Amino acid sequence: MFFASDNWAGAHPKVAERLLAASSGFASAYGTSELDQRVEARFSEIFEREVAVFFVATGTAANSLSLASVQKPGGISFCHTEAHVAEDECGAPDFFSGARLATVEGALGKIDPKALSAKIARFPQDAVHHGRAAAVTITQATEIGTVYSLDEIDAIAAIAQANGLPLHMDGARFANALVALGTTPAEMTWKRGVDILSFGATKNGCWCAEAIVFFDQEKAKEMHFIRKRAAQLFSKSRFIAAQFDGYFQDDLWLDLARHSNGMADRLRAGLEETSGARLAWPTASNEVFAIIPKSSAKTAEDKGAKFYEWPIPESQPDLVGRDETLIRLVTSFATPEADVANFLACLN
Amino acid sequence: MFFASDNWAGAHPKVAERLLAASSGFASAYGTSELDQRVEARFSEIFEREVAVFFVATGTAANSLSLASVQKPGGISFCHTEAHVAEDECGAPDFFSGARLATVEGALGKIDPKALSAKIARFPQDAVHHGRAAAVTITQATEIGTVYSLDEIDAIAAIAQANGLPLHMDGARFANALVALGTTPAEMTWKRGVDILSFGATKNGCWCAEAIVFFDQEKAKEMHFIRKRAAQLFSKSRFIAAQFDGYFQDDLWLDLARHSNGMADRLRAGLEETSGARLAWPTASNEVFAIIPKSSAKTAEDKGAKFYEWPIPESQPDLVGRDETLIRLVTSFATPEADVANFLACLN
Amino acid sequence: MFFASDNWAGAHPKVAERLLAASSGFASAYGTSELDQRVEARFSEIFEREVAVFFVATGTAANSLSLASVQKPGGISFCHTEAHVAEDECGAPDFFSGARLATVEGALGKIDPKALSAKIARFPQDAVHHGRAAAVTITQATEIGTVYSLDEIDAIAAIAQANGLPLHMDGARFANALVALGTTPAEMTWKRGVDILSFGATKNGCWCAEAIVFFDQEKAKEMHFIRKRAAQLFSKSRFIAAQFDGYFQDDLWLDLARHSNGMADRLRAGLEETSGARLAWPTASNEVFAIIPKSSAKTAEDKGAKFYEWPIPESQPDLVGRDETLIRLVTSFATPEADVANFLACLN
Amino acid sequence: MFFASDNWAGAHPKVAERLLAASSGFASAYGTSELDQRVEARFSEIFEREVAVFFVATGTAANSLSLASVQKPGGISFCHTEAHVAEDECGAPDFFSGARLATVEGALGKIDPKALSAKIARFPQDAVHHGRAAAVTITQATEIGTVYSLDEIDAIAAIAQANGLPLHMDGARFANALVALGTTPAEMTWKRGVDILSFGATKNGCWCAEAIVFFDQEKAKEMHFIRKRAAQLFSKSRFIAAQFDGYFQDDLWLDLARHSNGMADRLRAGLEETSGARLAWPTASNEVFAIIPKSSAKTAEDKGAKFYEWPIPESQPDLVGRDETLIRLVTSFATPEADVANFLACLN
Repeated sequence: MFFASDNWAGAHPKVAERLLAASSGFASAYGTSELDQRVEARFSEIFEREVAVFFVATGTAANSLSLASVQKPGGISFCHTEAHVAEDECGAPDFFSGARLATVEGALGKIDPKALSAKIARFPQDAVHHGRAAAVTITQATEIGTVYSLDEIDAIAAIAQANGLPLHMDGARFANALVALGTTPAEMTWKRGVDILSFGATKNGCWCAEAIVFFDQEKAKEMHFIRKRAAQLFSKSRFIAAQFDGYFQDDLWLDLARHSNGMADRLRAGLEETSGARLAWPTASNEVFAIIPKSSAKTAEDKGAKFYEWPIPESQPDLVGRDETLIRLVTSFATPEADVANFLACLN
Repeated sequence: MFFASDNWAGAHPKVAERLLAASSGFASAYGTSELDQRVEARFSEIFEREVAVFFVATGTAANSLSLASVQKPGGISFCHTEAHVAEDECGAPDFFSGARLATVEGALGKIDPKALSAKIARFPQDAVHHGRAAAVTITQATEIGTVYSLDEIDAIAAIAQANGLPLHMDGARFANALVALGTTPAEMTWKRGVDILSFGATKNGCWCAEAIVFFDQEKAKEMHFIRKRAAQLFSKSRFIAAQFDGYFQDDLWLDLARHSNGMADRLRAGLEETSGARLAWPTASNEVFAIIPKSSAKTAEDKGAKFYEWPIPESQPDLVGRDETLIRLVTSFATPEADVANFLACLN
Repeated sequence: MFFASDNWAGAHPKVAERLLAASSGFASAYGTSELDQRVEARFSEIFEREVAVFFVATGTAANSLSLASVQKPGGISFCHTEAHVAEDECGAPDFFSGARLATVEGALGKIDPKALSAKIARFPQDAVHHGRAAAVTITQATEIGTVYSLDEIDAIAAIAQANGLPLHMDGARFANALVALGTTPAEMTWKRGVDILSFGATKNGCWCAEAIVFFDQEKAKEMHFIRKRAAQLFSKSRFIAAQFDGYFQDDLWLDLARHSNGMADRLRAGLEETSGARLAWPTASNEVFAIIPKSSAKTAEDKGAKFYEWPIPESQPDLVGRDETLIRLVTSFATPEADVANFLACLN
Repeated sequence: MFFASDNWAGAHPKVAERLLAASSGFASAYGTSELDQRVEARFSEIFEREVAVFFVATGTAANSLSLASVQKPGGISFCHTEAHVAEDECGAPDFFSGARLATVEGALGKIDPKALSAKIARFPQDAVHHGRAAAVTITQATEIGTVYSLDEIDAIAAIAQANGLPLHMDGARFANALVALGTTPAEMTWKRGVDILSFGATKNGCWCAEAIVFFDQEKAKEMHFIRKRAAQLFSKSRFIAAQFDGYFQDDLWLDLARHSNGMADRLRAGLEETSGARLAWPTASNEVFAIIPKSSAKTAEDKGAKFYEWPIPESQPDLVGRDETLIRLVTSFATPEADVANFLACLN
């Protein structure tokens, strides 16, 4: 019963096999091999547009270097209060970009457009003392498992564009959001106004496969140097390419995300039927946040379930009762149905 | 005939299989899994001492974060003129450490102890304007395939110690140097006075397996934060651990390095017998630098050989004649004997 | 009627004369002259303790380098939501320290101790992903002209100390706070637990005289290098020393602050008696924040008054009515009584 | 007998008086006052072109921020081996720009054009591993008191231009070089191809007056933010402006430099006639480097002369004999003729 995180899973067999198959033979290094180039072309197909792709080691790297690529001195990147870039990357986005993050409130883990406009207005382009707006970044799916609708992305993109700011999407769980919306990669990104995407595949079945995707090739120009100086240029880069190769084959990535989301939906449904338990927020992708009795949490842990108790958001101090706890349950491509059933049984 | 770099090879089958075997199942993330811990313990066994181990994505990361961990404002790290940190990492060591490199001359790619002492003396600890000495870093094996003898490491370490400076070793080709000297990991490092090691396994049979090894646990304290802020903390860290697991099993790593060095030695021997060709420098590990007629280089390339023409060192402007070229030939765990023979045949 | 900022004033005649007197003759550079040393000793007298003093060019430099001197990778400095370091220094504290600021709410521009404890608790020392608490910084007097009482400083210092965090005080208006409290420099700083002080004299009668004061010499060790690398080491450093020399003579600095505060108090009293006007916050030092009819603001400006309309704090969106505006009035050592009277007359 | 440095002098009476005169009255802050603007206009007159001017606190700041303004990730700035930016600024140029310096040899403290071309060629614009050329910086007058002729500047500028690199001039001793060449500010800078100038006045009669001058306004766009984030934006900026105002009045600055150079020339002439003494390098501005018997140096010091013994350049290890020492003598606007005579008398 592993619900601690989707990064507790390993790699999907088809990804692992593809990696094994690529092991023999020689190929040029640093992203120039035939396989690297084939996978880059695959990205362009998937996004229905010529894109520039840069593999990096971690989601934190993808986000940090994306933001660094559009920074300027005194620049401010706007993100949601609970965004991964703000909460969980140890200051890497600031470190790499030499800029700062400003957080924006919004219900259900999503930036509120009105709050975004108001915040951006505090940092006009001539604000030498305050600093100036430089970029907007959203997380899809969000840190709490919700998903921006296409209209919601449009609203954010319109504000970014009106202010002349590039829009970045942290897609550590891109596939989960994509299948949740039932849309296409192009529709969820550049057709909405997204300029740069952190495309994550690690959580959804790869060992280590993160890519920065630029929809505007012009913005990508400096990334070769930014990435190398950031110590993120792999020599045997094709080991990343091989994973993506397996990941994209026969839409494996979408199948894996569907499975993952499906398992979360079962958890959701089961929790809604469990007396004493309730959902903290609606479930849209592969994360379920539930409020359960502390005693139930204890029981589940004693029976071997792995999950994290989650900090109460500063904005919702009264979310849980005295004898309750907020827990996060994350499903993955590898979550067995039986684990879901067993976990729900623990709570009854 | 792939002699362009050892990073053109893929992964050794035993490494790849170990990775495949680890793919299924769940395990805790960010370096806390049982496998991660077992591999860390293995490092301590191999080095005959309790060590602190940090996996990172690239050799550049290993070097840069190692140097960052011992920096101070205005600090200077001393390296050889042709060191990888100075020549091939796009300024990453400076970027991560906020400090500078000062280069030191020395024959055969190795720091000259007298020149090192003289250079360090230019940066005393109270030199607010100049900057102050902060660390020494050596490359083993060096960029030109030579190897510091144990006595030579002693000489550098004595100077570092006398000046109160930590000593870092860039071991991107650690195994190749180790088997060349026929010594033990402990003897080549901390018993000589090395404080921090960049332990590279990628070039010698892994896909992506680089580790920072601290022999003094105290110096490692800050690395958890330095690494995370540098976007180098893998979530599914055990995919690195699994590679090292296979790499260390039954001394595979030493066998691979012996093969690689052996292939280089055959190249060396063949080149010495080839009329019109000569060695630029003695061959000690898995890199051979040869001066050959431009026409021979052309012939070899036409026949499919892959190798790099190498820039003439600034200190040896007259190294090659008008019709000659300096080439670098790198062998790897995967180099077939036939390729060596075929390459030599091209030159005759 | 100059109430835009205390930095619109020039230099007090006694400061300027002292500078003039120091102009002739030769003296050693970079802070080593007899005058530099005499002024440093004077700081120790004033603070009743051996202190280490570093002159820098701006208040932003004093704050940024102070925080940089106590940083660690992934570190977080805690400040008030409206603190100068967060709002008005273009990210310099983050840039120089490689760390981040976390803002804490609190009424009247002062950090709320309970909120501080809660915020620090979110960044424990092993929080590799979140980042870890590194320092606390308070502003005395605050950005809105209020002043921490000695007990209030005690409360903040106790929390800092309990969490092992150094406490920094931004004293850009140190003298104004000091005379407001009627206490001594020692009592307002190290006796309360302040470790590092940005001691500002520019706003209170100097041209350019800012100093970083370390109460713990140990913490000052790295500052020589931090300051030089930050391009803040003056060659003719004694031109700063000369200003401080005049500033401290016969308690000039306290007299100037008393005048400045007194003028603000007159403004406050006048505003309280002005129909249609009211104070936004209590006045404690040399800044008065008033809510007045827009028409009155217009009238005053037309008659030549200089002042800034102030942004409405995010936490008090309903502070002003539709036809009102929030204005900031800052007095200085040079504010004539007549200007105060004339300004008040504009509003009636 | 103060020959240690021109920064041991104070401020010229006319500069000090101008500062005194500006002390009273109110004026807007942060470089927006009428005086600031008048002085900026004066710069444009002096340089016969519309220029953008930014006051900063130190020469190190002027150089560092100038280079930062034209940097790019992985960028390399080329300077002379003995340049102030490389030797005496504690790494500030690297720190602010996130880039590196590459040093170029050249006789008499001046970059050798051929060596520059060769060095730039090592860092082409696609050199992701090596890093790429980003800027060239020359020092006028140089660290050893020599002066680039206009033709020599042309030669450097041609190389910079051919490689698409901006050219920066470190003019800490700009006036001394200018009067040495007997040319105009325009001729010595933008008419030769200089893009950015560090214009120093501190050493030549001001307390603290350094400016960054952009000849291309486009390149200046980011500097407002770069400067503020670097904590170099003075609030009472007009105290710098006032100094420049006095400095430029009636060509005072040129007179001061002529005096300073004249005193150096007397020293030179006297040393040439002194048996046992000889010049290390030709004297062109206000610095004289002489090789004298150690016993003479001792005598001069005993009689109160202040000067520095200078490190032997790495490129000229045999410059001085066993019983000799290399000394640097710097004259300034304030050097009395009598001091020169007295010093020379010490050597005989």
